[in-house]
Amino acid sequence: MNIIIKTMENIHHINMSKETLTQLLKNCGALQFGRFVLTSGAISEYYIDIKKASTDPKTLKEIAIAMASYTKGYDVLAGMELGAVPLVVALSLETNIPYVIVRKEKRQHGTGKQIEGVSIKDKKVLIVEDVTTSGGSVVKTIDIIRKNQGFVEKVLCVVDRESGAKEKIELLDVTFEPLLSVSDILNG
Amino acid sequence: MNIIIKTMENIHHINMSKETLTQLLKNCGALQFGRFVLTSGAISEYYIDIKKASTDPKTLKEIAIAMASYTKGYDVLAGMELGAVPLVVALSLETNIPYVIVRKEKRQHGTGKQIEGVSIKDKKVLIVEDVTTSGGSVVKTIDIIRKNQGFVEKVLCVVDRESGAKEKIELLDVTFEPLLSVSDILNG
Repeated sequence: MNIIIKTMENIHHINMSKETLTQLLKNCGALQFGRFVLTSGAISEYYIDIKKASTDPKTLKEIAIAMASYTKGYDVLAGMELGAVPLVVALSLETNIPYVIVRKEKRQHGTGKQIEGVSIKDKKVLIVEDVTTSGGSVVKTIDIIRKNQGFVEKVLCVVDRESGAKEKIELLDVTFEPLLSVSDILNG
Repeated sequence: MNIIIKTMENIHHINMSKETLTQLLKNCGALQFGRFVLTSGAISEYYIDIKKASTDPKTLKEIAIAMASYTKGYDVLAGMELGAVPLVVALSLETNIPYVIVRKEKRQHGTGKQIEGVSIKDKKVLIVEDVTTSGGSVVKTIDIIRKNQGFVEKVLCVVDRESGAKEKIELLDVTFEPLLSVSDILNG
């Protein structure tokens, strides 16, 4: 009996959290409708403009609090430029876990690094992403982290568009944790 | 007599703050010595690797607190990708003032914007930068903000390398406020 009650409470808690986050994204205008060309070239009838959420400090703080519960046991947070940077910064400030920025390309000048921040060698790295679609960007991030000898077990994202990212990420033995999926938002 | 005492206190406070910030940058390894090629192509005997500071959450938080005292009266904070993004995010979370990210180039896909975040039209915009050298990047940021009808009166940066930025910025009727200059650091 106790187990059943506890399970129901957990389900209730998870639903509330998804609903609250969905409402936050709506309130700050991060969910838009129209006709949009995505980075991948695909056409979409809606656009998750997550930057409307991540550039609003109160919404960003709420997202960071929601993400913080997934960070236990990690040494370093990682975000690919540019979209994931506000999230990874806010999550780092929320948890005091240091973070790195993964550049799309190696820098030509200065220190010439592809990863900016602390060393990730032999560290447990949590990858943070804003929106996942086909997963190409996340796969590239996992690859760069692993080439730099960091351990990747989990990718955390705010919204998953459910367009292949989960399958691609799990093929690499990495757990995929979206706070929200597009079906959560559209049905929310 | 009162005025003199007050002035001395202010000077003392400013000196303490510069010293504390210099120590923070040293502690996190943001100040390095060697032979470096800067983005501008110039050779330097030292390198302010400000990302070592901005990717360490405690140092970043301290910098944001130091910057917060300059934000009064501003509607929006602005940072050019990529270096200024952690700073502008932390400052936004610290002050609850929304921020925008200024892209180096217009985005080709999605919403096609050069400025990501809230509208800056008729808003007082505070530009935040990590390190200033010749000032080229800041001048570009000022230009983009003004073309998008935002008001720019002040640029705030963490470290000024004293290589022309101040003169270029002031020519545009903008006040330049570095938390530290290279001479503060090297003499500190």
